[in-house]
Amino acid sequence: MELSLFNILNILGTVAFAISGALAAMDRRLDIFGIFIIGFVTAIGGGTLRDTLIGSTPVGWMENTVFVYLIGGVILLTIIFRNKINYLKRSLFLFDTIGLGIFTIIGVEIGIRNELDPIISVALGAMTGTFGGVIRDILCNEIPVIFHKEIYATACIFGGLVFVAMHSLGIDQDLIYITTSIIVIAIRIVVVKYEISLPYFYIKQKN
Amino acid sequence: MELSLFNILNILGTVAFAISGALAAMDRRLDIFGIFIIGFVTAIGGGTLRDTLIGSTPVGWMENTVFVYLIGGVILLTIIFRNKINYLKRSLFLFDTIGLGIFTIIGVEIGIRNELDPIISVALGAMTGTFGGVIRDILCNEIPVIFHKEIYATACIFGGLVFVAMHSLGIDQDLIYITTSIIVIAIRIVVVKYEISLPYFYIKQKN
Amino acid sequence: MELSLFNILNILGTVAFAISGALAAMDRRLDIFGIFIIGFVTAIGGGTLRDTLIGSTPVGWMENTVFVYLIGGVILLTIIFRNKINYLKRSLFLFDTIGLGIFTIIGVEIGIRNELDPIISVALGAMTGTFGGVIRDILCNEIPVIFHKEIYATACIFGGLVFVAMHSLGIDQDLIYITTSIIVIAIRIVVVKYEISLPYFYIKQKN
Repeated sequence: MELSLFNILNILGTVAFAISGALAAMDRRLDIFGIFIIGFVTAIGGGTLRDTLIGSTPVGWMENTVFVYLIGGVILLTIIFRNKINYLKRSLFLFDTIGLGIFTIIGVEIGIRNELDPIISVALGAMTGTFGGVIRDILCNEIPVIFHKEIYATACIFGGLVFVAMHSLGIDQDLIYITTSIIVIAIRIVVVKYEISLPYFYIKQKN
Repeated sequence: MELSLFNILNILGTVAFAISGALAAMDRRLDIFGIFIIGFVTAIGGGTLRDTLIGSTPVGWMENTVFVYLIGGVILLTIIFRNKINYLKRSLFLFDTIGLGIFTIIGVEIGIRNELDPIISVALGAMTGTFGGVIRDILCNEIPVIFHKEIYATACIFGGLVFVAMHSLGIDQDLIYITTSIIVIAIRIVVVKYEISLPYFYIKQKN
Repeated sequence: MELSLFNILNILGTVAFAISGALAAMDRRLDIFGIFIIGFVTAIGGGTLRDTLIGSTPVGWMENTVFVYLIGGVILLTIIFRNKINYLKRSLFLFDTIGLGIFTIIGVEIGIRNELDPIISVALGAMTGTFGGVIRDILCNEIPVIFHKEIYATACIFGGLVFVAMHSLGIDQDLIYITTSIIVIAIRIVVVKYEISLPYFYIKQKN
C-alpha cells in the first residue's frame, strides 16, 4: 500500500471510526468482545456497503490485512486510554465527525473512479460516510445519529457536491481531498455548536 | 431507457415507494433531509438488495441517473402537496401497497431473466417487494410492516407463484405483469379491509 | 451436490438455524408466514452475507434449490412438532449453538478456499456464524444474542483460530471440521452453564 494522501485519509477515517465505535460500546457497558466487534463494524461498515454496492468484491478490508490489524490495535489503545480519551469533551462526537468527513470524500472519489455519474458519486459518498455510524447506533440500540437534528447527512452531501464541482474544474486532487474533508467536518461542528436546524414539514391533522 | 411496460412499472413502483417513504418520514417529524433520505432508501431498498444478491453490480440506480432525479422530484412534490396527499385516507398504505405489488413482479421477472429456479425467483420477488418498506420502518423506528397481521408477504408470494405459473404457460409478458401486480395489490387491500388473518401457532407453556 | 462432510455440515447448520428461527418466531407469536420468513432468513442470513462480501453471487441458496425446500420442510416440521421440540429445555439455545458452531467453520473454510488471509477468514467465519441470529433477533425485536454476556462471538473466533492453526499444520480436513465445530459448540455451552463472563471496561464518569 503506497502512502498517497488517499490512503492516509482512508487510514485516518478508519482510526477515527474504530475509536468512536469502541467508545460507544464502552458507554453501553458491553464486554471486551462487544467493544472489538462494534469498533470493527463501525470502522469497516461504510466501506463494506460501498464496495458491495459497486461490486468491488471481496470488499476492501478483506484484501488488505493492514486495516484489520490497525483497527484491532486502535481499539486496544482506546480501551487502555479510555479515561484519557473520554477526558476530551464530546470525544465520541469528534471522532465520529472526522470519520464522517473523510469517508464521505473517499466514497465520492471511488464513485468517480468507477465512472459513476457525479450525483450518484455524492450519494455513494454519503452512504460510505454515514453507514458505519448507523450500524454502530443500531447495534448499540440507539436512534441512529443520522436522524439527530444535527444535519449529519447534509454535511456529507454538501461536501460531496463541492468535491464533484472542484473535480470538474480540474483542481489538484490532494487539494480537493483536504478542502472537502474539512468542509464536512466544519459544517457538522458549526451546526452543532450554534444549534442550527433544518426546516420540518408537518402534515396537517384532519380529525 | 426504452418505454417498455417493464420500465413503466419500475418507474411507478419507485414513485409509489418514494411517496410512502416521504410520508412516513413526515409522520415521524424528521427534518427535510431525513425526508429525502427515507424516501430515497425506501424507493431503492428492494432493488438494491435484489441486485446485490444476484451480483448485478453496480446496482441498478447507480447506472441510471433518471431514477435518482425521479425520486428527488417525487419527494419534493410529496413535501409540497403533503396536506393534499394526506387527505386521501390511508394514503401511506395505498402507495406502499402499489410499490409492493409492482416491485414483487419486477423481482420475479429479474430472477427468471437470470435463469434462477422459479421458486427462488418468487423469493427474490418477495424480497424486492418488501425490503424497501422494512428499511423504512426500521429507520423510522417502527415495527416493520411486514410483520403486521396484514399478510403483507403472503400477497407477494402468492402473486409471485401466479407469475411463474403464467410464465411457464407461455402467456404474453405484459399481460403477466399487469395481472400479477393487480393480484398482489388486491390481496393486500382485501385482507386489510376484511381483517383476514393467518393462523398462529403457540408453543404450550410448561411451567 | 455430492455428500462430502462439508456439505453435510452445511445442511446440518442450515437445519439448526431454520429450527431456531421458527422457534423464535413462534415465541413472538408471529403468524404462519412470519414463522416461515424468520426461519428462512435465519437459515440463509450468514451465508448470504458471506457470499455477498466475497462476491460469490448469485448467493449460495439461489443456485441450490435443495436448501430452499430443506428449509421449508424443516420449518413445517418445527411447527407441527413445536410442543415436543420445546419440551427439550433451552432448545432454541441448543439449535442456535449448533448452527453457530457449524456455520463459523464453513465460513472460515470458504475464506481459505478464496485465498483470503487466515485472520480475515476467521472474521468471515464469525460473520457467517453470527449474522443469521443477529437478523433473527432484530426482526423479532430482541437485543441481538451476540451481545448477551454469553461470549457468543468469542466462541466463534476461538474456533476459527483453531481451524486456521490446524489447517496450517496440514491436518486432515474432515478432522478439522469436526474438531473445530465441536470446540465452538462446547465453549458456548460451558460458558453459559458456568456463567463465565468476559471483562468489562467502564469509562470513569467526570461530572
